Amino acid sequence: MSLDELYAKLLVKTPAKMALVVMDGLGDIATKANNYLTPLEAANTPNLDKLTQDAAQGRMIPVAPGITPGSGPGHLALFGYDPIEFQVGRGVIEALGLGLELKAGDVAARANFCTMNDKGIVTDRRAGRIETEVCEELCALLSKKIKKIGDTQVIIKAGKGHRFVVIFRGKGLEGPLTDADPNREGAKIPTVQPVDPSSAGQKKAAKLIGEFYKEALPLISKRKPANGFLLRGIAHQPQIPTFEERYQLKPACLAVYPMYKGLAQLVGMTKVEGPQTIAEQFERYLAEYNNYDFFFIHYKYTDMYGEDGNFEAKKKAIEEFDAALPILLKKRPDVLAITGDHSTPCAVKGHSWHPQPVLLTSEISGSDKLDRFTETGANLGSLGIFEAKYLMRLMQANARMFDKFGA
Amino acid sequence: MSLDELYAKLLVKTPAKMALVVMDGLGDIATKANNYLTPLEAANTPNLDKLTQDAAQGRMIPVAPGITPGSGPGHLALFGYDPIEFQVGRGVIEALGLGLELKAGDVAARANFCTMNDKGIVTDRRAGRIETEVCEELCALLSKKIKKIGDTQVIIKAGKGHRFVVIFRGKGLEGPLTDADPNREGAKIPTVQPVDPSSAGQKKAAKLIGEFYKEALPLISKRKPANGFLLRGIAHQPQIPTFEERYQLKPACLAVYPMYKGLAQLVGMTKVEGPQTIAEQFERYLAEYNNYDFFFIHYKYTDMYGEDGNFEAKKKAIEEFDAALPILLKKRPDVLAITGDHSTPCAVKGHSWHPQPVLLTSEISGSDKLDRFTETGANLGSLGIFEAKYLMRLMQANARMFDKFGA
Repeated sequence: MSLDELYAKLLVKTPAKMALVVMDGLGDIATKANNYLTPLEAANTPNLDKLTQDAAQGRMIPVAPGITPGSGPGHLALFGYDPIEFQVGRGVIEALGLGLELKAGDVAARANFCTMNDKGIVTDRRAGRIETEVCEELCALLSKKIKKIGDTQVIIKAGKGHRFVVIFRGKGLEGPLTDADPNREGAKIPTVQPVDPSSAGQKKAAKLIGEFYKEALPLISKRKPANGFLLRGIAHQPQIPTFEERYQLKPACLAVYPMYKGLAQLVGMTKVEGPQTIAEQFERYLAEYNNYDFFFIHYKYTDMYGEDGNFEAKKKAIEEFDAALPILLKKRPDVLAITGDHSTPCAVKGHSWHPQPVLLTSEISGSDKLDRFTETGANLGSLGIFEAKYLMRLMQANARMFDKFGA
Repeated sequence: MSLDELYAKLLVKTPAKMALVVMDGLGDIATKANNYLTPLEAANTPNLDKLTQDAAQGRMIPVAPGITPGSGPGHLALFGYDPIEFQVGRGVIEALGLGLELKAGDVAARANFCTMNDKGIVTDRRAGRIETEVCEELCALLSKKIKKIGDTQVIIKAGKGHRFVVIFRGKGLEGPLTDADPNREGAKIPTVQPVDPSSAGQKKAAKLIGEFYKEALPLISKRKPANGFLLRGIAHQPQIPTFEERYQLKPACLAVYPMYKGLAQLVGMTKVEGPQTIAEQFERYLAEYNNYDFFFIHYKYTDMYGEDGNFEAKKKAIEEFDAALPILLKKRPDVLAITGDHSTPCAVKGHSWHPQPVLLTSEISGSDKLDRFTETGANLGSLGIFEAKYLMRLMQANARMFDKFGA
């Protein structure tokens, strides 16, 4: 019996309301440059501090020791899915990030416009980093001319600069496929191939993409510098058991950025649209309190400023979050977890593997008697250092959603 | 190579004496109602405190994050068996709890007397909660009339109120079987079926139980209100490698309550009978010191008062335990672990998933330099937060029972 099967077997429905509040990239590291304080430690956070009195704390390993997750694995783990078992292809993540609605079975690819010479050799994989407007114009052209290939719908959406996304929506398609990208200049664009040659769905998708190239390349062949394109990370939307069937919880997503809405949608959460600030997100939580059992609330700015290496701005983003927190607490959920999907340390200027701090509070979370919610404090908490995929299980336990195992 | 195989390969016999002292349901949580102290923190425990000076501490996840164990999985983990791999059916646990000696291959069922109408419809699944004396009389009647079915021995033992246990001891029997219980009133008693229809042993057991019903029901059909019975959790005693073959340790069980003696017996421990108090148990440990290598000493009252939600009584039970501890220490075992099989927080009034604290002391345990043995202190210990099934391995390591792995 697998652990997931055991959890499923012990599951009981309760009327508990739960909120998972994600401060993206929250975790950080203490370095000399900032007097050995993390942004969370340096920030003034009276409302988080107050929560700690009745909370357990710990730190979470996003995937495995030393593994730095992208937003996809980071969030899948928070949603309680093993991020190694449930891998989402880059094409799918990219499409979600552009706000495209994917359906089960859709095959998605990240795409770049590129420059080729008259022998078909790629001379610039980014087509001189064309402006977004040029990319949008080229995508509009391709979209207009190629709506379908056979019975398969083709959806093309421009991203930033030379980047775009192509989605193939048809019957019996599967990924992953090899890249239509030499991954270096000076070579031709390779033909995509099934990764598993015995998969009929992959073979069909590979053939389709070959035909797509045949139709699309002539349409832009006279353009300069973007007279070709590369496809990478070609994957289909994986079959993931929905959040609702897995946990017997009706989930809502309160996120502002498309990527996080997309990841929530991937597990079947309902996207509650509208709010643009964390205060508005919390207000909307209050308004929707009776309509859902589980609320995923996503706050982007801690990650954004961590990526910039901007310590002061990350600290300020935490303080703004903290100032809005009392709105959420007007109707305190029975189980509340506040954490990040990973760390984005200012000193790293990017995502990292450092375990993110987590705070978990419920009537029966117990108190770790810590004065504040910080990385250093969380090291001392009763939750210990654990894999992020177990947070959902601890939230369920705190909601008394598991029968006793064995007599 | 599995981890168990590696442990087995590295095993060496040493003359070390080891004691695993289980304060049942020891772990608790700090809540406002008790000034944010756990019973262990509030208790006056000079002898435990003194032990900490030369001890390592940590906390143990009984089964997996968020999983609340019954006594069976809780103790199997403490005995070093993966509680998900080695699952013990409820019928077996119930039989053990009534002090029945099970043999390998025995099929056991929890049973309830019930009331049926003249159409065989169950109208009360608990037969109006008959008195224990009535239950005992009915069980005596059934026992007298049905000693064997074919070549299979039938053993019937009354429990409390309407509850009893039936054991089938014969050749080639296997569980699990489906329940002979509609699990609601207003329906007939379903015929038991093999859970795995391809299992000959399950088929044989199911047929046998069908015959048992045919013989037993007429014997009580005129009784009121208990004119029928239900069987649930029908399972056979699993094949578990004995403690002695697994660890090369001769183990003794010093427990007062039948359930814990039964669990110890399940892994082949010798039950040392007689002592009724923890002081007597420790005295008996001294007397038996030379006769065994490993002592499992079980103390029930921390769990009992936790189940009642009685903080003061749980605290007092800890203090009584502490007061008796010097008896054990007259012949200090080479390796001593003191812990719970799970938490039973007063605020939960039942078992829970919260990791229980553990104290481990030996000449080479090292000291965590903690002043006391408490949940909050144990969070800071060198053992960290780990799965309870590894405690035995740590005890063996402290007894120098493992060769170096690799050169």
